[in-house]
Amino acid sequence: MAKYTMRFTQFGLTTLKEVPADAEIVSHKLMLRAGLIRRLASGLFTWMPIGLRVLRKVEAIVREEMDRAGALELLMPAVQPAELWQESGRWDKYGPLLLRMSDRHDRDFCFGPTHEEVITDVARRELRSYKQLPVNFYQIQTKFRDEIRPRFGVMRSREFIMKDAYSFDLDQAGLDESYARMHAAYTAIFERLGLTFRVVDADSGEIGGSRSQEFHVLADSGEDAIAYSDEDGFASNIETAATFPEGTRAAASEDIKKLATPGIKTIQALCEFLKIDPQQTLKTLVVEGTDCPIALVLRGDHELNAVKAQKIPGVASPLTMAAPETIVRVTGCSPGFAGPMGLDIPVFFDHATLSMSDFVCGANAADMHYTGVNFGRDIELPDSVDIRNVVAGDPTPGGNSTLSITRGIEVGHIFQLGDSYSTAMGATVQTPDGKNQVMAMGCYGIGITRIVGAAIEQSHDDAGIIWPDALAPFDVVLVPINMHRSEAVASASEALYDELQAMGLAVLFDDRNARPGVKFADAELIGIPHRLVVSERGLEAGELEYRHRRDDESRNLKREEALNLLKE
Amino acid sequence: MAKYTMRFTQFGLTTLKEVPADAEIVSHKLMLRAGLIRRLASGLFTWMPIGLRVLRKVEAIVREEMDRAGALELLMPAVQPAELWQESGRWDKYGPLLLRMSDRHDRDFCFGPTHEEVITDVARRELRSYKQLPVNFYQIQTKFRDEIRPRFGVMRSREFIMKDAYSFDLDQAGLDESYARMHAAYTAIFERLGLTFRVVDADSGEIGGSRSQEFHVLADSGEDAIAYSDEDGFASNIETAATFPEGTRAAASEDIKKLATPGIKTIQALCEFLKIDPQQTLKTLVVEGTDCPIALVLRGDHELNAVKAQKIPGVASPLTMAAPETIVRVTGCSPGFAGPMGLDIPVFFDHATLSMSDFVCGANAADMHYTGVNFGRDIELPDSVDIRNVVAGDPTPGGNSTLSITRGIEVGHIFQLGDSYSTAMGATVQTPDGKNQVMAMGCYGIGITRIVGAAIEQSHDDAGIIWPDALAPFDVVLVPINMHRSEAVASASEALYDELQAMGLAVLFDDRNARPGVKFADAELIGIPHRLVVSERGLEAGELEYRHRRDDESRNLKREEALNLLKE
Repeated sequence: MAKYTMRFTQFGLTTLKEVPADAEIVSHKLMLRAGLIRRLASGLFTWMPIGLRVLRKVEAIVREEMDRAGALELLMPAVQPAELWQESGRWDKYGPLLLRMSDRHDRDFCFGPTHEEVITDVARRELRSYKQLPVNFYQIQTKFRDEIRPRFGVMRSREFIMKDAYSFDLDQAGLDESYARMHAAYTAIFERLGLTFRVVDADSGEIGGSRSQEFHVLADSGEDAIAYSDEDGFASNIETAATFPEGTRAAASEDIKKLATPGIKTIQALCEFLKIDPQQTLKTLVVEGTDCPIALVLRGDHELNAVKAQKIPGVASPLTMAAPETIVRVTGCSPGFAGPMGLDIPVFFDHATLSMSDFVCGANAADMHYTGVNFGRDIELPDSVDIRNVVAGDPTPGGNSTLSITRGIEVGHIFQLGDSYSTAMGATVQTPDGKNQVMAMGCYGIGITRIVGAAIEQSHDDAGIIWPDALAPFDVVLVPINMHRSEAVASASEALYDELQAMGLAVLFDDRNARPGVKFADAELIGIPHRLVVSERGLEAGELEYRHRRDDESRNLKREEALNLLKE
Repeated sequence: MAKYTMRFTQFGLTTLKEVPADAEIVSHKLMLRAGLIRRLASGLFTWMPIGLRVLRKVEAIVREEMDRAGALELLMPAVQPAELWQESGRWDKYGPLLLRMSDRHDRDFCFGPTHEEVITDVARRELRSYKQLPVNFYQIQTKFRDEIRPRFGVMRSREFIMKDAYSFDLDQAGLDESYARMHAAYTAIFERLGLTFRVVDADSGEIGGSRSQEFHVLADSGEDAIAYSDEDGFASNIETAATFPEGTRAAASEDIKKLATPGIKTIQALCEFLKIDPQQTLKTLVVEGTDCPIALVLRGDHELNAVKAQKIPGVASPLTMAAPETIVRVTGCSPGFAGPMGLDIPVFFDHATLSMSDFVCGANAADMHYTGVNFGRDIELPDSVDIRNVVAGDPTPGGNSTLSITRGIEVGHIFQLGDSYSTAMGATVQTPDGKNQVMAMGCYGIGITRIVGAAIEQSHDDAGIIWPDALAPFDVVLVPINMHRSEAVASASEALYDELQAMGLAVLFDDRNARPGVKFADAELIGIPHRLVVSERGLEAGELEYRHRRDDESRNLKREEALNLLKE
C-alpha cells in the first residue's frame, strides 16, 4: 500500500451515525456506517476506498499463499458462452441463479457464477500430456449469482469476488495430493488473515464429486451449524455430521394405552398435555417418495436432516414434505396424529429412536395417541438409519468424545470434482503409455468479499469493527487534539505522521477540524488497531496517549515508548 | 511478484509455432503464439499466467501513479441498473454496444462499458459540501462493449479492463487543476511503462464536454492518424487538427472552357484523362443537411474530415453523404460531374481551395467538366471553412512549423465532462455561501488490457515480442544446455537460479528437456529482455553466454560480469 492520501480530509470517507434501515446483520450495518461499502442496487455494492483497502489485503494474502502452493494465476472472462454450459449440462440445471443475456447477434451468454466449464475448456486445449500435470489454475475475479433475496450486505450479494482454483491431475492419487495442498494453503490463508475458523466436512451437493470440506469463520450469527470435537479433531457441517446406532434400551415398564388427545397436533402441545419431555415422544413425518410416500420417525426433540434423508432409497430428492391430503390418505387421519404402527408405507426409524422405551406416539386416528409404547412388544424391532441432525453431546464418529455445536460462516470450500466435467467436456491427456485419459479435477473457492463481512461478524463491539491486524485498513490512527488552534500540536502531529509512515505503517491522520469525541468515535467505528493521540498537555510531558482497539483504557506513553510499541 | 513457479515446466505455458488463422495484426498473433492469451469466444479472452503477469505490471504502475496524484481507488459493480442510464439519457442513446440483461425479477441492467452514471450516483450521495472537494475516484475494473466486430485480439475485445477515474470539483477552475493533474499522471504512467507515446488533442465526441486529449502509443499499425510538430510541441488527432486560410493565389492565366469528359467520374480518371495533378482539381461533395442538401468543395487530393464537416451549420450530424437521386436532383446530372458553379444549395469551400487558379471542376452537366476556372472571375470569391484532414507539410496552428503525420493506438483519454452528468443526475454540493452548486466533472480512462497489445505493436521483430523492461513478464530467462545430461550444468543452473532470484529478479528457468534451439526460440517469442545460457563449455571457462533481446549477437561474460550487468 502506498503512503499517499492517508489524511482523513483527503480520503473521501463519510461515516454514518444512523444504522441504515435495510441492514439486518451487524457486519452489514458496520460496513455501511464505517463507509466501507455503498449500495448501488439490490445485492450490488460499491467498495469505497477504505473498504477496498481491506479487500485488497485479503486478496494479497490469498494470492501469496496460492502462489506458494504452486498454483498459477490466470484470468478468465466474466462473460461465458452458453455452449460450454450446454456441454456440461448445467445451462438447464442451474436455474434462475444464472444471470443470462444475449449479445447483439442473439448468442446466449451468462455472467459466470463459477468457472468449471471455462477452465475445462482451457485445459482440454492446453493440456495434452501427463507431463504437463499436475497443474492448478486460479483466478481472483468478479462473479454474479442472481440471488432470489440478496441480503446481509456482502455476505450474500449478487456480484461478488471469488478466488476460484481448479486442479488437473492424471488420476485420483494425484487429485488427493492437489487437494491436500489446497487444504494446507487454505489453512495458511485463514491463519494469516487472523480469523478463528474451522475446517469441516461437507456435503458435495449438486456440484458432484467425492470429497469436500468447508472453511468456516466462527461467529454466532453464522448461517451454518457446525458439529465439532476438539479432542477428536473432528468437525463437520451439521448437514453431514453422522449419528450412530446407540446402545441399550431400558425394559418396558408401562402398558400400551390409546389416549384421547383432542386437538393435540404438535410435540410441544403433547408434552404440555401429558407433562412429559419431548425425549419421551416419537414424531412421524411423511415425505414424498419416488414410488409412494415414506414415513420417517424421529425422537420428538430431534430435527430431521434433509441432506441425509434424501439419500435414503425411495425418498424423493430434494426432500419434500407430503401434502396434508397425502398424510390423510396414508395415515387415515388429519396431520398431527401419525405414528409408525400399522402404516402401509415404508417406515424408517432414526438410530436414536431405538434406545427409547415407554414412549408416546401418534395412533393414526384423529385426536388419539398411544402411550407406553415399546419396541419388541408393540412395534417389531426395526433397523435404524441416520436421518437427524446431531446435537451437542452426541458421540463423535470415533466414539471417544462428544460433539459440541457452534455456528460458522462459510468462506472457503474445497472439492474433489473427479471426472464429471472432464468426461462431459472431453478433457483428456496422453498417459505415459500413449493412451488418452480423462483428467481428475478439483475445485477450490474462497469468497474474497465475503471474508470481509465474516471478519466483522466475528470481531466487533458496540462501538464498531475490531479488525485483526492483517485486515485493518490502517495500522494506526493519529488523532491530534485542537490541531487547528495549536501550532505545537500541528507540527508534532505532522512530524509523527511522517515518522510513522517511514516505519512502514499505514497511518490514518485525522486532520479534520472536529471535536476529539467525533474523531475517537470514527476511529473505533472503523476499527483501526492502534490509536495515538497528540495533545498540548501530552507534548508538554513528552507523551502520547496510546490505546489499542481491544483495550478498555488508554495510557500515556513516552514518545519513544509508543513508537517502540508500534514497531512490534 | 513472488518467486514461486518460475520453472518453465511448472508454469503451464504452451507456445505455438503456427500463426492462428483469425489473428490479423501482429500483437494478436504474438499474444496467441507466446501463450499470453487464449480465445474463449468472439472478443473474449482468457489471460494465461504469463499474460497476466504483464497485465498486472501495467495495473501496478497505473495504480501507483494514480495514488501519487491523490486519486482514491474504489470498486464499482460491473452490473449497473438501467434506471441510472435512463436518468442520464444514455439508456436509449448508447445503442447495441451496451450489453443489456434482465434479472430474475425482470429488472433491466447492463454490463457497464463505463461508469459515469454509477460514480455520479455515488458522488451525489457522498459529497455534500465544497469542503469535500476536489476528489478524484478511480477503479481498475472489467468492462464490456458489445462490439459489432470484435477483432485485433485484446485491442478491440468485448470484455476488457479499464482504469477509469472521475474527478469532482466545485467549478471550472478546479476542474482545470484536476485535469492537469491527470495529464501529468498519465504522462508519468506511459513514461514508466517505457512506451513511445504522444498526447494529442482530440474531439470530445458523444460523451460531451469541453476539453479532451488522447494518449497514443505510436505504431505503424495504429488505427488513428496523428498530426504533430515537435518544433511547436503540437499534436492532435487528425480528426481535430485544424487547417487555416492560406496566403496568395496566382493570377488567372487560362480561359474557362467547358470540356466533354465522357464517363470520367472520379478525380483519378479526370487527372489521367487531362494529364494533370489532383491538386489542379476541385471535388464537390453533396451531403445531407438539416434543411436541404449542402455542397462541400475540396481540392481534389484532399480528404473530407467528417468531424469538422458535421459541425458546419446546416450540415446533418452524423455526416451523411447524399444519395445518388439527391445528387441528380440538386446538380441536374448523375454523380461524378458536380461542381460549385450554379448550384442552388449552400456551398462551402475548404480553405485550401482559395489558393487555386486555373483549376478543373465538374460542370453540373452529364459528362462535362470546366477547365481554367478561376475565383473572382468565374466564381465569386467565397468565404472558406476548415473541412479537410490535415496532410504532412500543412502549417501548425502557430504557423511556425509544419505538420508531420504518424499513426497511433489510443490507450488513454482525458476529458473535461463539465456539468452534463451532474446536472442530469442532480449531483450538487453546498458552496461556501450556502448555495447548492452542480459539480464540475472530469473523466479519465486508460485501456489496461489494450496497453499490452499496443506495446507489442510498437516493439517486436520477426522472432517475437520485445518488451520494455517495465512490462516484461520475466527479467531474465535462464537457459541451461543439456541440463538433463550434465550434472555440472544442472547444479550450476540451479545455483544461478537461486542467486538471480535473491537479487530480486524475476527469472524464467527453462528447465525443459528440450533442444537449445527450441528454448531460444521461445525466449525470443516471449520477449524476455535478458538471456543467460549455461553450458558445459562455458562453465569450464567460468563464463555465461549473455544476450539482450535487442542485441544481434550474444557474448560470453565472466559469471560475475554477467551478474553485475543484471544488477544494473
